[in-house]
Amino acid sequence: MINTLYLPELREMLANGNAEGLREFCEAIHPARAAEFMAGLKSEEAWGVLRTTELELRADIFSFFGKNKQFEILETIDANEVAEMVAEMAPDDRVDLLQELDPERLDELLKLLPIEERRDFQRLSQYPEGTAGAVMTTEVAKLSEQLTIREALNEIGRQSNDYETIYYLYIVDSEDHLRGLVSARQILTGMKSPDTPLTEIMDTDLITADVLEDQEDVAKRVARMDLLAIPVVDNQHKMLGIITHDDVIDVVQEEATEDAHRIGAVDPLDESYLRTGLITLTWKRGIWLTILFFFALLTAFAIDEYKAQIDNWGWLAVFIPLVISSGGNSGSQSATLIITALSRGHITLTDWIRVVLRELVMGLLLGAGLAIMGYLASRFFVPSDVEWFNFVMFVVPVTLLLVVVCGTLTGSILPLVFEKLGWDPAMMSTPFVAGIVDILGILIYFNVARLCSSWV
Amino acid sequence: MINTLYLPELREMLANGNAEGLREFCEAIHPARAAEFMAGLKSEEAWGVLRTTELELRADIFSFFGKNKQFEILETIDANEVAEMVAEMAPDDRVDLLQELDPERLDELLKLLPIEERRDFQRLSQYPEGTAGAVMTTEVAKLSEQLTIREALNEIGRQSNDYETIYYLYIVDSEDHLRGLVSARQILTGMKSPDTPLTEIMDTDLITADVLEDQEDVAKRVARMDLLAIPVVDNQHKMLGIITHDDVIDVVQEEATEDAHRIGAVDPLDESYLRTGLITLTWKRGIWLTILFFFALLTAFAIDEYKAQIDNWGWLAVFIPLVISSGGNSGSQSATLIITALSRGHITLTDWIRVVLRELVMGLLLGAGLAIMGYLASRFFVPSDVEWFNFVMFVVPVTLLLVVVCGTLTGSILPLVFEKLGWDPAMMSTPFVAGIVDILGILIYFNVARLCSSWV
Repeated sequence: MINTLYLPELREMLANGNAEGLREFCEAIHPARAAEFMAGLKSEEAWGVLRTTELELRADIFSFFGKNKQFEILETIDANEVAEMVAEMAPDDRVDLLQELDPERLDELLKLLPIEERRDFQRLSQYPEGTAGAVMTTEVAKLSEQLTIREALNEIGRQSNDYETIYYLYIVDSEDHLRGLVSARQILTGMKSPDTPLTEIMDTDLITADVLEDQEDVAKRVARMDLLAIPVVDNQHKMLGIITHDDVIDVVQEEATEDAHRIGAVDPLDESYLRTGLITLTWKRGIWLTILFFFALLTAFAIDEYKAQIDNWGWLAVFIPLVISSGGNSGSQSATLIITALSRGHITLTDWIRVVLRELVMGLLLGAGLAIMGYLASRFFVPSDVEWFNFVMFVVPVTLLLVVVCGTLTGSILPLVFEKLGWDPAMMSTPFVAGIVDILGILIYFNVARLCSSWV
Repeated sequence: MINTLYLPELREMLANGNAEGLREFCEAIHPARAAEFMAGLKSEEAWGVLRTTELELRADIFSFFGKNKQFEILETIDANEVAEMVAEMAPDDRVDLLQELDPERLDELLKLLPIEERRDFQRLSQYPEGTAGAVMTTEVAKLSEQLTIREALNEIGRQSNDYETIYYLYIVDSEDHLRGLVSARQILTGMKSPDTPLTEIMDTDLITADVLEDQEDVAKRVARMDLLAIPVVDNQHKMLGIITHDDVIDVVQEEATEDAHRIGAVDPLDESYLRTGLITLTWKRGIWLTILFFFALLTAFAIDEYKAQIDNWGWLAVFIPLVISSGGNSGSQSATLIITALSRGHITLTDWIRVVLRELVMGLLLGAGLAIMGYLASRFFVPSDVEWFNFVMFVVPVTLLLVVVCGTLTGSILPLVFEKLGWDPAMMSTPFVAGIVDILGILIYFNVARLCSSWV
C-alpha cells in the first residue's frame, strides 16, 4: 500500500526548493519509513528528495525503495550522481540490483564506481545465483588475533560505520583464515577486564557456510541455530564475508515462494511477478501445462478404451469429473502436507512408514466419507430401471473410496521418493500429482464399472 | 537427518557414568550442534547427558531439541528436575512448549515453577495464538532514562545473561513507557564520551508492534525494515516485551507453511504433521474435500444436461478430463502466482488492471499453444466419417483456448477479490479455483459442441 500522508508536503518542499526541510524530513525518521512515505513520488521527485541528504543516508533510504522504483532511478537519473550513491550501498544489495540492470547501463555505472567497489562487484557477481556467495556481504568486522578487548573496542569505534553488523566480530589470522568469533555481548560484558586478549574469550567452534553452498541450506542452519549472522568461508577456511539475519529472512521468503510456485506447477520466477516478462512467464508455465496436457491425453486414451461401457451405461460419463477431481484433490492435499513437512524438517525420510500408514488411514476415512456422498449422488443420475439397480449403485462409491486412497498414497509417496532421490520434493507439484491420480482414477472407475457389469 | 557421529561415545560415557566427559562434550560445541548430536538418543539418555551440565546450558541445548523429544522429556522425566530447567528457558519458548503439554502435566510443572516464571507464563499465555504478544519474550534490556553511556554499559555487564538480546537497549520512563532506543553499536562507538546521557543519543522514532497485532504483519515489518528486534507495546505505549530476529524467521516460516496449506486446500495445522491427530487432520482435509465434492457434483449435473450431445458425438466424453484439467491447471498456476505475489508485497490491489491484462494475454498465449496440441489430439479420437469433419475438428481447440483464458482470469481475479474484501487470498486455494474452472470448462465445452453441431 502506498502511504500518501506526507506526499503534499514533500511535493511543496520540492517545488519551493526547500532542501533544508527535505533533509530534515529524511533524517527525522527511520530510513525504511522515509522510503515508505516517498513511495508515491515519481522517480525524479524521489531523487530530488534523496539528493538533499548526505550520501550514506541517501543509499540507506534508497535500499528500502521497491525494486521497480530502484530500477527507474538507476536507469533515468544522471549516471554520475547515481554511481556515487551506488558506491555507498551495502555490497550484497548492490550486486543484487546491478545484476538485473540493463547491460549497457550497468557498464556505464561500473565505470563510474571507485575501483574497490568495482572489484567487489566483480568478485561477488561471480558466485552463481542461489549460493551463499551470492547473498553474502563483504563489509564485515574482521579483527586481528593479537588484539585485546580494549583494542577491539577502539577498533570497532573507528570503523563501525563500514560494517553491516558489529554484533559478531570475527577473529582472523594474518592470511584471513577464520580463527574465532567474539560477540559484541562478550565485548560489552568483558570491559571489566579490558586487557584480556580476544583469543582467550573467543568461541572457536564456529558454524560457517561454504561460499558455494545452497543459500536455502545456509538459511535453514541460521534459522535452526538462532544465529544473527553466519561467516562465509572458502575451502581453505579463508573468511570471504558474512550473511546477516535480514538476508536470511529474505532467503527464507524467497525459498518459500519458490516452493509455492513449484507446488503450483510454475517454474520458479527469478524476478517478481510484474518484472518477469510475459514471454518468460508464458514459457515457465507453458512447459508444465504441456507436460500436464500429455498426462491428460492419457486419460482420453483410457476413456476411449472403455467407450463401450459408456455406450452401455450413459450415466457413467456424468461422474468422470467428480471421480477424477476427488482423487486429484486428496492427492494435492497429501502432497502439500508432505512437501511442507519435509521442507520444515517436521518429517524426515526415516518417518516414511509412519507417513504412508497415516495417509492410508486418512485416505480410507476421507474416501469413506466421499463414498457416502457419492452413493446419495448416484440416486440422481443412475436410472432406476437399470438392471440390478441396488448393485450398480455401488459403482461410484466404491470408485471414490479407491480413488481417494490412491490419491493420498500417490501424494505422499511421490514427494518422499523425490526426497530420497535427492531432488526437490516440491517438484512433485500438486497438478502433477493430480495428473497421475486422474489417469489412475479413470482406470479404477471403468474397471469397477466393468467388473460390476460383468457380474450383473 | 539424525547425526550419529558421537552416539557411541555418548552412550559409552553414559554407561560408565562419566559425567565429566559428558559435560565437556556439551560445553565444547554450540548448543544447537550438541542437540543435533543427541538427536539419536532416547529421552532418558538425552536427559542423562543434559543433567551433567549447568542449568543454563541445559535449558539452551534442550531448546534446540525437536518438539517430539522435548515433549517426551517433559512428560517422562521427574517433574522436579524438569521444572528446574523449564524455569531457565526463554519465556517465549517456554510458553510455546508448555501450552501444547498435556493439561495435567502442565499443572504439575507450573506448581513447581518459581512464582515469577509462573506469573510470566500466565501473562504470556493469555495472548491469543498468532498475535505479537504470543511470540514476544519478556526478557528484554530496559534501561532508565537517567543513565549515561558508561552507566548503561555497567548495567548491561551486570545483567546481560538475563536478556535475549542486548543489541537493542530500550529506554523507558519510571512507568515502563517506551521512550527511545539505543543500539549496542551506539554504546560501543559512544565510549569516547562515556558521560553522554542516553537520552541524547537515543533514537525516538521507534517502530513498534502492538501486543494484539497479527504476528504475520509484525514479521513482515521487521523483514522489510531489516530490524534485529521490535519492541511490543500496549495501547498506552508501555513496553511489554520484544520479538527478536530468530522468532521473526520462525513466524515467516510458519506463515509460509500456512499459506501453502491453504493453497493446497488443507485447513492450516496448529502443530506439525506428525503431531496432528488423525481425526483432526481428516477433519481439516475433509471439510475442503466435501466443499470441492459439491463443486464437482455441479459438473455432473452439467454433463447430465448435455447427455444428448454425448449420445450424438460419443468422442466428446473422451476429452472431458483433458478439457477440465487444462483449465484447472492454468487456473492453479495463476492463483499460485497472484497469491504469492500479494503475500510478498510484489503486487498490490492498485495493480489489478495490469495483473488481469497480463493474465488475459498469458491465457491467450497458453490457450493457443494447447489449442494446437488439442487439434492434433482430435485427429486420433474424432471419427473421420463424421459430417463436416474439418469443422468439427475445431471443437476441442476452441474449447481449450476459452477454458485456459477462463482459468487464468479466474485464478487471478478471485485472489484479488479476496484481498479486496480483507480475507486471506490464500483461502482461494488452487483446488477451489480448479473446481470453479471445472464447471465453467464443462459449460464451455458442451456449448461450443452444441453451437458447432447446430451449424453443421
